[in-house]
Amino acid sequence: MSKEIIKIFDTTLRDGEQSPGASMNTEEKIQIAAQLERLGVDIIEAGFAAASPGDFDAVSKIAQRVQNSTICSLARAIDADIKAAGEAIAAAKMKRIHTFIATSPIHMQYKLKMNPDEVIRRAVRAVEYAREFVDDVEFSCEDAGRSDIGFMKEITDAVINAGASTINLPDTVGFRLPNEIGAMVKEMSEYTKGRAIISVHNHNDLGLGVANSLEAIANGARQVECTINGLGERAGNAALEEIVMALKTRHDIFKDYDTNINTKEIYPTSRLIANITGIEPQPNKAIVGKNAFAHESGIHQDGVLKHKETYEIIRPEDIGLDMEDTLVLGKHSGRAAFKDKLAKLGFTLSDDELNSAFERFKELADKKKDIYDDDIRALITSEMTNIEKAYELVAMQLMDSTGGVPSAAVTIRHNGEDITDAGIGDGTIDAVFKTIDRITGYQGQLIDYKVKSVTQGKDALANVTVKVTFNENEPAIIGHGLSLDTMLASARAYIGALNSYLSMEGMLKLRHTDSTETI
Amino acid sequence: MSKEIIKIFDTTLRDGEQSPGASMNTEEKIQIAAQLERLGVDIIEAGFAAASPGDFDAVSKIAQRVQNSTICSLARAIDADIKAAGEAIAAAKMKRIHTFIATSPIHMQYKLKMNPDEVIRRAVRAVEYAREFVDDVEFSCEDAGRSDIGFMKEITDAVINAGASTINLPDTVGFRLPNEIGAMVKEMSEYTKGRAIISVHNHNDLGLGVANSLEAIANGARQVECTINGLGERAGNAALEEIVMALKTRHDIFKDYDTNINTKEIYPTSRLIANITGIEPQPNKAIVGKNAFAHESGIHQDGVLKHKETYEIIRPEDIGLDMEDTLVLGKHSGRAAFKDKLAKLGFTLSDDELNSAFERFKELADKKKDIYDDDIRALITSEMTNIEKAYELVAMQLMDSTGGVPSAAVTIRHNGEDITDAGIGDGTIDAVFKTIDRITGYQGQLIDYKVKSVTQGKDALANVTVKVTFNENEPAIIGHGLSLDTMLASARAYIGALNSYLSMEGMLKLRHTDSTETI
Repeated sequence: MSKEIIKIFDTTLRDGEQSPGASMNTEEKIQIAAQLERLGVDIIEAGFAAASPGDFDAVSKIAQRVQNSTICSLARAIDADIKAAGEAIAAAKMKRIHTFIATSPIHMQYKLKMNPDEVIRRAVRAVEYAREFVDDVEFSCEDAGRSDIGFMKEITDAVINAGASTINLPDTVGFRLPNEIGAMVKEMSEYTKGRAIISVHNHNDLGLGVANSLEAIANGARQVECTINGLGERAGNAALEEIVMALKTRHDIFKDYDTNINTKEIYPTSRLIANITGIEPQPNKAIVGKNAFAHESGIHQDGVLKHKETYEIIRPEDIGLDMEDTLVLGKHSGRAAFKDKLAKLGFTLSDDELNSAFERFKELADKKKDIYDDDIRALITSEMTNIEKAYELVAMQLMDSTGGVPSAAVTIRHNGEDITDAGIGDGTIDAVFKTIDRITGYQGQLIDYKVKSVTQGKDALANVTVKVTFNENEPAIIGHGLSLDTMLASARAYIGALNSYLSMEGMLKLRHTDSTETI
Repeated sequence: MSKEIIKIFDTTLRDGEQSPGASMNTEEKIQIAAQLERLGVDIIEAGFAAASPGDFDAVSKIAQRVQNSTICSLARAIDADIKAAGEAIAAAKMKRIHTFIATSPIHMQYKLKMNPDEVIRRAVRAVEYAREFVDDVEFSCEDAGRSDIGFMKEITDAVINAGASTINLPDTVGFRLPNEIGAMVKEMSEYTKGRAIISVHNHNDLGLGVANSLEAIANGARQVECTINGLGERAGNAALEEIVMALKTRHDIFKDYDTNINTKEIYPTSRLIANITGIEPQPNKAIVGKNAFAHESGIHQDGVLKHKETYEIIRPEDIGLDMEDTLVLGKHSGRAAFKDKLAKLGFTLSDDELNSAFERFKELADKKKDIYDDDIRALITSEMTNIEKAYELVAMQLMDSTGGVPSAAVTIRHNGEDITDAGIGDGTIDAVFKTIDRITGYQGQLIDYKVKSVTQGKDALANVTVKVTFNENEPAIIGHGLSLDTMLASARAYIGALNSYLSMEGMLKLRHTDSTETI
């Protein structure tokens, strides 16, 4: 018996990137897109091409790179947005423009200040114009969760006639309960039967994003929009991994449906995105949290030892977690073994990147006995961010004592020249960052600073994530640093953020300044 | 029209503490219980008294302290467990014993190795014995989600006759979909109508814990078991804050129900528990995540400015978030203002604790211009953990340089005597921790190390959390350290963990070694 495929539309690179502090550089977005393709995502929403030159650049590079997933750009129902989207995805093998306008009374009245007829005209124009660039056009009724269903039918008729083939019904504010979403989807999918695919896009403000998506599927939705780790505006979107694993685990109920997702790539994808964004899923996050498969109480441990299914409904290997925490490489591992491991973990590096990463790996292997998958992931992620090394850390010294003044001396290479200077600070980290500022001439504002040990134990790598703004009108830049030494990792992270900033300079601008709407 | 009250049963201190790495010391548990009382929780599951002398101690101290919430201890269906529970909660004004046994075929066969008749006999005996200690007995059908409903009716009849007044139906493995939970609860609550309250306890393995709890309420459940921040075994439990705020936000649907929760205490409670456990809700966590009320995209910001409800369905002030991020205290604030602020934030400190905290606050105010609520919270939390200061950091010096060997010199006060020594390490942190080990004679194994900046900006406090085991047969101990200087904060955290360990020594033991079951 053939099953119906539920299309998985991943918007980690668009709605996910709208998470405060989740902005990524182009290189990072390309790595994520490649991993989403490997995961088997049907449609990758690669960005919002019109938002900034940086977004346009990332979407078009992803369009050139990805072969097996449809590449989509978001566009408001405005010609300029649609043109940017169409041009950015032009090179893609499979491509889609996703345009939208708000259909709820509250959004039409207060935000758009348009009457319903104007909204329909704008939507139709947008879809018609989008069809000049692509055959595959998706239209979203923004704030569908609070829209009148009669009006949604009307606008849906109009945009289907104009050439839209997917109608998305976002619960933009995450307000709806599962039975409400189910009823809306049922009515709309019966109404559009054979004319368009009904899609949902559920936000998680009340913690119901996944339940709402499953209920939508049960009532006729054939596409779900979601993100890895549930990233997204505010409380985020329904988590891809939870929807997919609920469908799989409860195949007794969802027996008529399947997805194209290769679930074994779920865990590697989750790690990649956590490392790049610095937004770690909480340990008690379903499916991909650090504790999702951990059994703490002796009672549970005892049960699992006696019979696995007493407390385990998903096998760790089903999400690609079986190979984790095993010793993977040591100081005698060669370049070939290292490259193999990277491929297995889903990284595709240029020769230059590989050389630099291998060098760092050998340095690490000299000092750290056991190197785990997570160490390698952190290493590569920190390499990627630092891809254009305008500034490079050469050496660092620091002194700190209670009652004294923390001081740092730092040597940085820039355009082939080594520059050394010293500085003081309120703490050791502050002394290091201020000294770097003194040398480079940039004034970074530290927005966030985090250190995480990559694995357990005394010789664990310190993974430092900093968020820094170098220009108050631009989004914060994330930098990663990795070292056995927390101070060294901190310096690398800060310089990494600066390099990342310089690689994007002039492409950031203020995002969405002439805002009208989004979903 | 009077509304039906849905009882909120908080198990943060029991199931939540079973989150790997969430173990807390007695002082911390008491502070949490006091805050849960302030939040308006109906029943506080304070622990599992028979698990260890430390658990017993914490449950009994909470029973003495809390006045307005029922204090509950978990107990397996074993006389020794029930006796320990009964004795631990003896002093409570309102008290409950919560006993349980598995009722699913898979658990009865593989884990309990008992036939259904034996299980019923054990359950009845447990409830009867529990009634010798208390009037209020709750019985749980462990793994109800996978149990035969006919058998559950049978055992429910038996335990109600034996004196149980609440029947809890845990979805122990987080396997069920909302409509399944709804159907089970409907059948069981109609069956027991007027004889017992039906309760649910939903785990979140498929991301459906909250949806399942709401569906249970709609179908007759009058108690929900949940945790702050959704802590708990594996992917955790349904989050209290999400259930409560969904009921409140969607009062149009749930118009017949209410809870006793004071929602303005939700955010302070969430912060307290995150600070103490070191388990931070992910930024995209519903209700209490850092981004839950943040609007990143210009489009959303624009909408919110034009009309709040375009993108906001919950007002931040409803969860107690309105006073946050405001400047609260400065260097000229006196002891009275400080004490007031602590009371507002929910802390109740002894005079000694207050003195020590105020001293630290003044030190901080000398160096840091703006002091925020989160700074105060972090300060107090780090004070609490270090309550019994067997060892105290007096001074520290450190040197680090690339290519060189990181070294530290540390002075620690112990029994009135200052001891100084030096040591080296693989990194600066490692050098500090190894030197502390050398001075104290304890060998800590570092399990986890995290640094977070408490607020934004250059002079943000570094909040360091370490997890350390001092004895491999005992759970990891959490230590907190706070300072403008990351290195100093790290040393304080490590010494804090040691002090916390020493305050509990002999009370930890191996937990639940003779395991039989849990929910």
